[in-house]
Amino acid sequence: MHATVTFRSRMPLSGIDGKGHETLFDTSPEFSGTGSAASPMDTVLEALGACSMMDILSILKKMKREPVLLETRLDAERADDHPKVFTSIHVIYCLESPGCRQEELDKAVRLSMEKYCSVAAMLKAGGCSISWSTQLV
Amino acid sequence: MHATVTFRSRMPLSGIDGKGHETLFDTSPEFSGTGSAASPMDTVLEALGACSMMDILSILKKMKREPVLLETRLDAERADDHPKVFTSIHVIYCLESPGCRQEELDKAVRLSMEKYCSVAAMLKAGGCSISWSTQLV
Repeated sequence: MHATVTFRSRMPLSGIDGKGHETLFDTSPEFSGTGSAASPMDTVLEALGACSMMDILSILKKMKREPVLLETRLDAERADDHPKVFTSIHVIYCLESPGCRQEELDKAVRLSMEKYCSVAAMLKAGGCSISWSTQLV
Repeated sequence: MHATVTFRSRMPLSGIDGKGHETLFDTSPEFSGTGSAASPMDTVLEALGACSMMDILSILKKMKREPVLLETRLDAERADDHPKVFTSIHVIYCLESPGCRQEELDKAVRLSMEKYCSVAAMLKAGGCSISWSTQLV
């Protein structure tokens, strides 16, 4: 897997993945940014949500469920001292999917969090505790 | 730190950070995506580059250097088995900054990688080896 990130005289930073997709990164003006895009740590937090959601959508599809809406709300705590890593994250998964049962949603989330989600596995291996809950809406 | 990620019937996923910035996530059609944006793991790799670049830009500024161009090239290896975590990453930092000396660039990168970069610290704590090299251009 290959990527480049480029700074040309000013923020935001432009990230380009191996297929040419662009993702922007910025920080707030107090840290010499322009506040135009998410920060790297915001993006890692969102990548955790997105990575697990892709697993969950795939697992629900195998269960013959059709999600209309899946929303993930993530709350993270960080260490006070540098390098200010994530210490704990709670994730709430809200699913709207006609006919889907609570235990099916919970099974999909559990499989993602315990087996498939690469981002969750890396953060947990690094010492961050990750908890989750689910809501069928 | 708070974020949400939302799926509404189709990809890409929309991530929104605590200040309202949007970051999109997608995957390739073979995994039921539309290939319209970077994947979560691509984004984590780019976030590593972006996070350390923000440190480096800040440190160079304190050294009274003015970077014109800073480009980071990242190459990552992943485990073959689920959850397919990053196992090793090499980062090449290319800097164009009039008057900047090689040892100044190396010092800035070392401070980021060993002390300040949150994303690098989390990945390393999780077992991923991260190596780096620098080029003044």
